[in-house]
Amino acid sequence: MPVPSTFLRVACCQLRPQFGAVVRNRELVRDAVRSAAAGGARLIVLPELCTTGYVFTSAAEARSLAQPAAGGALDDWIEEANRSDTVIVGGFAEVDERGALRNTAAVVDGSGVLAVYRKAHLWDSERDVFEAGDDPPPVVQTPVGRIGVSVCYDLFFPEMTRRLALDGAEIVVVPTNSPRTVAGIAAGQHIGVSIARAVAHVNRVFVAVCDRWGEERGQEWVGRSVIVDPAGGLMAGPPGEGAAILLADCDLATARDKRCPGASNDALGDRRPDLYGP
Amino acid sequence: MPVPSTFLRVACCQLRPQFGAVVRNRELVRDAVRSAAAGGARLIVLPELCTTGYVFTSAAEARSLAQPAAGGALDDWIEEANRSDTVIVGGFAEVDERGALRNTAAVVDGSGVLAVYRKAHLWDSERDVFEAGDDPPPVVQTPVGRIGVSVCYDLFFPEMTRRLALDGAEIVVVPTNSPRTVAGIAAGQHIGVSIARAVAHVNRVFVAVCDRWGEERGQEWVGRSVIVDPAGGLMAGPPGEGAAILLADCDLATARDKRCPGASNDALGDRRPDLYGP
Repeated sequence: MPVPSTFLRVACCQLRPQFGAVVRNRELVRDAVRSAAAGGARLIVLPELCTTGYVFTSAAEARSLAQPAAGGALDDWIEEANRSDTVIVGGFAEVDERGALRNTAAVVDGSGVLAVYRKAHLWDSERDVFEAGDDPPPVVQTPVGRIGVSVCYDLFFPEMTRRLALDGAEIVVVPTNSPRTVAGIAAGQHIGVSIARAVAHVNRVFVAVCDRWGEERGQEWVGRSVIVDPAGGLMAGPPGEGAAILLADCDLATARDKRCPGASNDALGDRRPDLYGP
Repeated sequence: MPVPSTFLRVACCQLRPQFGAVVRNRELVRDAVRSAAAGGARLIVLPELCTTGYVFTSAAEARSLAQPAAGGALDDWIEEANRSDTVIVGGFAEVDERGALRNTAAVVDGSGVLAVYRKAHLWDSERDVFEAGDDPPPVVQTPVGRIGVSVCYDLFFPEMTRRLALDGAEIVVVPTNSPRTVAGIAAGQHIGVSIARAVAHVNRVFVAVCDRWGEERGQEWVGRSVIVDPAGGLMAGPPGEGAAILLADCDLATARDKRCPGASNDALGDRRPDLYGP
């Protein structure tokens, strides 16, 4: 499929990592990245914690599997990005320069690691394992566009995604692990998709949520990967359970135009900081 | 239907106001309020600008139909609220104490006007007619609960609804007029419902959007009223086009608990103002 010249083909690789199987997961990621690149993708998004799996029973167990960003964990990604001239964003368990464990997303291209972002809003028992990040989410200028990064539960904090939009993100990419049950939500109404659509629309940005699927230590994951346009419309997904590579052709220039089509409004310019702060 | 004692039955009266027909619209509202009250509702929400219709061609035309909040516009509502021991929230075209035209929502009970809120984010050509409000959205302590008020496009500014939640709103009520077309959104994906669900979930509040339906001077309205629970689940609606009275029994106490069920998280307490401001 040819990609229109001003468009960026984005892929979300919905995988099923196997807990603790670092070598197997590395192969799984490599194969998915190659498939996405063969499909024309130039921005490839992977799930949260895709090198290790998610359900750590202790910090010690996580530490035994975590890797530094500058170590081997991302070498494969850089090599694949280099082979395919792509940008890859994915989540991994990081041990940082201070020795702290982090739930981290990295942005890499063929030249190396462009940015790491450490999840600022930790979900549930993640706090028994990881330290929350201390830095604002980055907007990374890459060869394919300006990429804002969040991880999973971060997306539930509209202040965070607004920050990314104000900082110029054209697409917000969100490595994610969505658990099956969010109490109180009926089947078919998984809230993550609504939140991704709302974030896209109110900020006029693309949003690419890359989820995982499958079961891990009794926890099921639902496979709610989506790619959303700046109006909040679904371009791809959610596929539900099962391996999937979502592809969507995103004209990132449209995310630099904050006007609401057909109206004289501006999603960022219409804000009223006088009423609710910056 | 008996309402569990700790629950509040909420109604959204999805009406079709007729442009400029103030007397007819008053009767329409009165009948809907009586139906909702007969159905057990104690909080009754009406659409935006339901006394006049929406599609003003000039400020002069709006001025000829607008009324002061202290004038006759709300007397009917107060009388109906008194008869039925309800709280009514709805939108009307207001001429304020300075003579400025406002797109206003009022909260009334049988004792009178509890609060007015003037829409802060004006949509499209509303700016040719109205002045935007200068005051933060109110959280009104009423006999039925703590009600946060927004109007239509306000809901697209997550800073505003976050403010309402931080100020203690248990339910955010949103008199609304949703136009048929938001460019770029496919049929069945109207973004307003996703945004209402996202607002509810990320703030752990109930959200009641009362929309209108029908056509007015060539503008069609889609009827996307919804009542959403604090998990983001749909309790009622959207009905689509046609007159409808949505009813839902809301246990407002659940909106005072910001924990995410099944996790050790807190929707407001987990915020990171150090990363993105208050």
